[in-house]
Amino acid sequence: MRIRVINPNTTRAMTATIERCALAVAGPDTVLDAVTSEMGPASIESHYDEAMSVPGLLAAIRRGETEGVDGYVIACFGDPGLDAARELAAGPVIGIAEAAMHTASHLGRGFSVVTTLGRTAGRAADLAERYGMQRFCLGIHACELPVLALDTDPHARKIVTEACRAAVAADGSDAVVLGCAGMADLCAHIRDEIGVPVIDGVAAATLTVRSLLTLGLRKSGRGEFAAPPPKTYTGPLASFGS
Amino acid sequence: MRIRVINPNTTRAMTATIERCALAVAGPDTVLDAVTSEMGPASIESHYDEAMSVPGLLAAIRRGETEGVDGYVIACFGDPGLDAARELAAGPVIGIAEAAMHTASHLGRGFSVVTTLGRTAGRAADLAERYGMQRFCLGIHACELPVLALDTDPHARKIVTEACRAAVAADGSDAVVLGCAGMADLCAHIRDEIGVPVIDGVAAATLTVRSLLTLGLRKSGRGEFAAPPPKTYTGPLASFGS
Amino acid sequence: MRIRVINPNTTRAMTATIERCALAVAGPDTVLDAVTSEMGPASIESHYDEAMSVPGLLAAIRRGETEGVDGYVIACFGDPGLDAARELAAGPVIGIAEAAMHTASHLGRGFSVVTTLGRTAGRAADLAERYGMQRFCLGIHACELPVLALDTDPHARKIVTEACRAAVAADGSDAVVLGCAGMADLCAHIRDEIGVPVIDGVAAATLTVRSLLTLGLRKSGRGEFAAPPPKTYTGPLASFGS
Amino acid sequence: MRIRVINPNTTRAMTATIERCALAVAGPDTVLDAVTSEMGPASIESHYDEAMSVPGLLAAIRRGETEGVDGYVIACFGDPGLDAARELAAGPVIGIAEAAMHTASHLGRGFSVVTTLGRTAGRAADLAERYGMQRFCLGIHACELPVLALDTDPHARKIVTEACRAAVAADGSDAVVLGCAGMADLCAHIRDEIGVPVIDGVAAATLTVRSLLTLGLRKSGRGEFAAPPPKTYTGPLASFGS
Amino acid sequence: MRIRVINPNTTRAMTATIERCALAVAGPDTVLDAVTSEMGPASIESHYDEAMSVPGLLAAIRRGETEGVDGYVIACFGDPGLDAARELAAGPVIGIAEAAMHTASHLGRGFSVVTTLGRTAGRAADLAERYGMQRFCLGIHACELPVLALDTDPHARKIVTEACRAAVAADGSDAVVLGCAGMADLCAHIRDEIGVPVIDGVAAATLTVRSLLTLGLRKSGRGEFAAPPPKTYTGPLASFGS
Amino acid sequence: MRIRVINPNTTRAMTATIERCALAVAGPDTVLDAVTSEMGPASIESHYDEAMSVPGLLAAIRRGETEGVDGYVIACFGDPGLDAARELAAGPVIGIAEAAMHTASHLGRGFSVVTTLGRTAGRAADLAERYGMQRFCLGIHACELPVLALDTDPHARKIVTEACRAAVAADGSDAVVLGCAGMADLCAHIRDEIGVPVIDGVAAATLTVRSLLTLGLRKSGRGEFAAPPPKTYTGPLASFGS
Repeated sequence: MRIRVINPNTTRAMTATIERCALAVAGPDTVLDAVTSEMGPASIESHYDEAMSVPGLLAAIRRGETEGVDGYVIACFGDPGLDAARELAAGPVIGIAEAAMHTASHLGRGFSVVTTLGRTAGRAADLAERYGMQRFCLGIHACELPVLALDTDPHARKIVTEACRAAVAADGSDAVVLGCAGMADLCAHIRDEIGVPVIDGVAAATLTVRSLLTLGLRKSGRGEFAAPPPKTYTGPLASFGS
Repeated sequence: MRIRVINPNTTRAMTATIERCALAVAGPDTVLDAVTSEMGPASIESHYDEAMSVPGLLAAIRRGETEGVDGYVIACFGDPGLDAARELAAGPVIGIAEAAMHTASHLGRGFSVVTTLGRTAGRAADLAERYGMQRFCLGIHACELPVLALDTDPHARKIVTEACRAAVAADGSDAVVLGCAGMADLCAHIRDEIGVPVIDGVAAATLTVRSLLTLGLRKSGRGEFAAPPPKTYTGPLASFGS
Repeated sequence: MRIRVINPNTTRAMTATIERCALAVAGPDTVLDAVTSEMGPASIESHYDEAMSVPGLLAAIRRGETEGVDGYVIACFGDPGLDAARELAAGPVIGIAEAAMHTASHLGRGFSVVTTLGRTAGRAADLAERYGMQRFCLGIHACELPVLALDTDPHARKIVTEACRAAVAADGSDAVVLGCAGMADLCAHIRDEIGVPVIDGVAAATLTVRSLLTLGLRKSGRGEFAAPPPKTYTGPLASFGS
Repeated sequence: MRIRVINPNTTRAMTATIERCALAVAGPDTVLDAVTSEMGPASIESHYDEAMSVPGLLAAIRRGETEGVDGYVIACFGDPGLDAARELAAGPVIGIAEAAMHTASHLGRGFSVVTTLGRTAGRAADLAERYGMQRFCLGIHACELPVLALDTDPHARKIVTEACRAAVAADGSDAVVLGCAGMADLCAHIRDEIGVPVIDGVAAATLTVRSLLTLGLRKSGRGEFAAPPPKTYTGPLASFGS
Repeated sequence: MRIRVINPNTTRAMTATIERCALAVAGPDTVLDAVTSEMGPASIESHYDEAMSVPGLLAAIRRGETEGVDGYVIACFGDPGLDAARELAAGPVIGIAEAAMHTASHLGRGFSVVTTLGRTAGRAADLAERYGMQRFCLGIHACELPVLALDTDPHARKIVTEACRAAVAADGSDAVVLGCAGMADLCAHIRDEIGVPVIDGVAAATLTVRSLLTLGLRKSGRGEFAAPPPKTYTGPLASFGS
Repeated sequence: MRIRVINPNTTRAMTATIERCALAVAGPDTVLDAVTSEMGPASIESHYDEAMSVPGLLAAIRRGETEGVDGYVIACFGDPGLDAARELAAGPVIGIAEAAMHTASHLGRGFSVVTTLGRTAGRAADLAERYGMQRFCLGIHACELPVLALDTDPHARKIVTEACRAAVAADGSDAVVLGCAGMADLCAHIRDEIGVPVIDGVAAATLTVRSLLTLGLRKSGRGEFAAPPPKTYTGPLASFGS
């Protein structure tokens, strides 16, 4: 069972953290690695960043398909390129927002999302609606730390922890969903500090892919997610056609 | 990691099938058993049956808590007693409809449910709404086989398979969710026959519990699902108070 | 026209209050009585309590059917066992949350619910959704008085009244729905104190049943609510099979 | 207890039928009469007709208020002028679509509406949404008989009955709601013919008003439905100002 | 291209303001005028006022049809009589709430509405739902100025401006929709003051009608909005029949 | 007033058609041109194609900003990159699905969408939900013609026309929305043939942008759509950073 976690931004340090958190739950029967996107922005904090990260993500999926990867995690809380990735891959592809929200829905009446910059909250709300998780998503809160500051700001752990505590109090929620792959390694600490379940999407998505593979479930053969028809390409992305 | 699958009807043969299907996916690091409810109806095919199965289910949860069980699967597609079970148990409790529908939502735009008697379709629709899965649930179809006939009717396999095939065609769906724990062992056969993903909730819920345990997630400590306050009881269920 | 109000908890004092409030609106052409469930918890304040109250409630319905009762009120704001009761009874069965919410919807743009313990608010929200009353339900507020304290706490009336006043102010609502059968006798007092309509579900449900009987409307003959199929039972609830 | 049923079209023969059906359920403690609007169209079959019927309806409410009427029924299935009427009247005002849909929701999972002309179906759908009854309204079907033909077409009873039978079959519904006050006297016949509950809104609304009066519930004092502020008027409707 | 803006209240001074704001955007290829309703209330601040304004509005539409008008704007934020007007007119009819909300939805994630009296907020919410704009409508706020005071109160501009500023802060919205035709001439001032887009429905609706005419789009020929069937009328509105 | 229509696929012949249809409605006060994306797939018929078209689209927006363009139309019915484009552009950016659906909602109770390949129907449904137009979108129908075949298949016009006719009949809709920019020049023909309003999104979006510019409305300054923060880029898309 080969699972690949794709960091769709191009910051390798973040990929290392992500890989560690994914490996911690993957289990001995799983071959798991994390890869960094080879093109695109260093972090994803806008619709623009997200859109520009997708070609790199899709290139990683295409390479994975040639390398025998069975399933993929998209390790950015905007779940960039999810539909397109599902067309490309024969096996399951799961976004970390998708997995985290579904997982949190099993734990009570509702969850709070704590994200990085406030400008990303709209995307999280869109995803909650898409996945049917709107009824469980009681609030989306920003701690206004940029993604890369999670790794460099000495107060990052404290800032995120306090944002989580405040979110639970404001929403009356049963759990917290961490709204950035870069928060993955804060998960256990925050849970201990605030005493409510905290969900890291990287770990949650890794286990969701693992479960789908164990169940032998692959994407449907129905038209919408069938392999995309080959196309003639123009310009620097020409290698994406076939 | 101890997982217990509870068959909330009182038919032991069905428990054996359920246990076999759960064990097939549980993994070597999991101690899993299936138990039969000790009181209630032999099968669950009405709101009345479902209500009457709940005390037996809850007794099984209470016993599990004293025996060190870490997580539970409720193996009936009506997910009977789910909220009450979550109050009783310290660890995760997952219904098979809940797990199957969430799992199916990862596979495409929508799924069909194929259930036993038409009179149970309303309950399945209620659950789809509760779990946020209504937008993925494209149709609920009955094959009009009683639950226990799944095991005794020589044509059962063929009837359910054809109902699944027809459901996919009618709904344009990407996957089929089997709407009864008693169909668990038909899953692989139907998938092979109709060529679309088929989800058995028993296996899906086993893996959902397993994932929650791996993630260290337990129910929220928030008021709604805290342990129920002790009560004085009257009549034959007096042992349920404390 | 015989109407029976069933108190699904086992506290007789509460049944007496309920009966008095129901009789006050029933009208001279109605034979109405209230009965106490013969098994289950003394009060209903959790999903667990609610689940465990259902067999007693259903036994009361079964007895009512042999005694010529025409319609029933379920006098607990969680409307426990409503679907199962509708399968058993030939005539109408109405829950007090159901009746109170529908009634309140005729009075303006929206209502507030004031309930006992905060842990029951989730159930009230589920019911509002089920009945289509979510768009009218502007808030659910707890006064954190246990059910039985409504009868014994000397400050109960004041506490509930002030909770209602605060709820209307917070929600900008047009009416208050009392979220517990045990508050039935506070209804007129609170209305006088806070000057907005206050709805007691016991009285509202009694009149809803009465109206359905006057209209000659009985449950549909459609499959979902047809009499439940007979079943073999195991254990202490064996008398519930047939 | 004085209840007035207002026929907002100007056809007196229809008022007589409506009054008969309302009196049949009103009960001996109720003084009930039906009045015909004094201005507007002879029947209501378009948005235009409905809008033009409202001044006459509101004039009838204003007169009722000076004559000591306690509650009102608006006897047209478009529930014309309901919000404005609630501002004018001190007591309850109920539309027949409102009452019929609420009543039908107590009888099972869903109902079909059978109306006159297909062009009125949109209005029925709007009302179902407004009242929160969309989830119960499984279909809206037209029999394409004009309103006044219900009284004059010798085949009317048969046409409406067959439309109801077909609607139940198409929707799998538990009940039929008659979509025109002019169908009130067909209700019992159709129920006998098709064997499912059939709801006439005139009778249902009469009992809803009666219940609200018995409960002592009047409209909220909140701003939206307070008495409308007096205004200067221009033109033929000047008597409507104050 | 002839566009007519109808002020459905009978205050001519307000019509003049409305006409000025509409002309400012209409473009040289458009012949635009604004007319004052010839019957009804001087301002619209209740459901009652709105209902009573509709006959005058519809008379203006009928006259417009005989005078070769191509499209209409209904210049009151309750969009009174919109459905009926669409039946009468061959060309497009657009309400100012409709146009303003649609327009605002193009500018970001959501808008705030700032209206006159709080009692009109319910109507604005109903319209947001009807137009599918509920997901964009983040809040409805009243400045508690009566409609006619917009023109006479020396502090009106400041009061409305501050209400808009507060609404944006409270809702985190991307734009403000002015909730009264009488606020049309405040639009540019408020935008300059608070630095977010402000939408006046009069201008927005004028351009929406203009666009529909440029596209050659007229109402559908489908039954619901076909010309209303002729009717016999009784009383002072008799001229509205046939 | 400078408006630019961007064809996000790389087929210049299609851009020419699009430009012609946009110019036909743009008006003499508008400087309008259409440009072809300089990188990406020749047509957009999958989630993958759509994702891969976005960088080219965004490059066109960036160039437009340096060239003084005031507003943009995205001329592909999947509205690719809309959120990201709104971050980049100072003025309005409108998708053709967005404009077409909003426009159609003014014409009656609901519309049908007729698109190219069935696999794109899911995206159209997602957009209808996003724009609040789900309640007006009565059906999405495919004619199973590839995008480029619209220009080359001699039967294309007839196939699309018949698909539109069938859609209206199946859905009972009031209008047809053409689900591909490549159908823009079929609009008038189909309208004439089937006798219901037909909306081409290219023309509709051109006029929506024009209206927003006339109203002086630019995107909100709120965080979500502010200019994206500059980023370091890796790989062939490096020119997209800073």
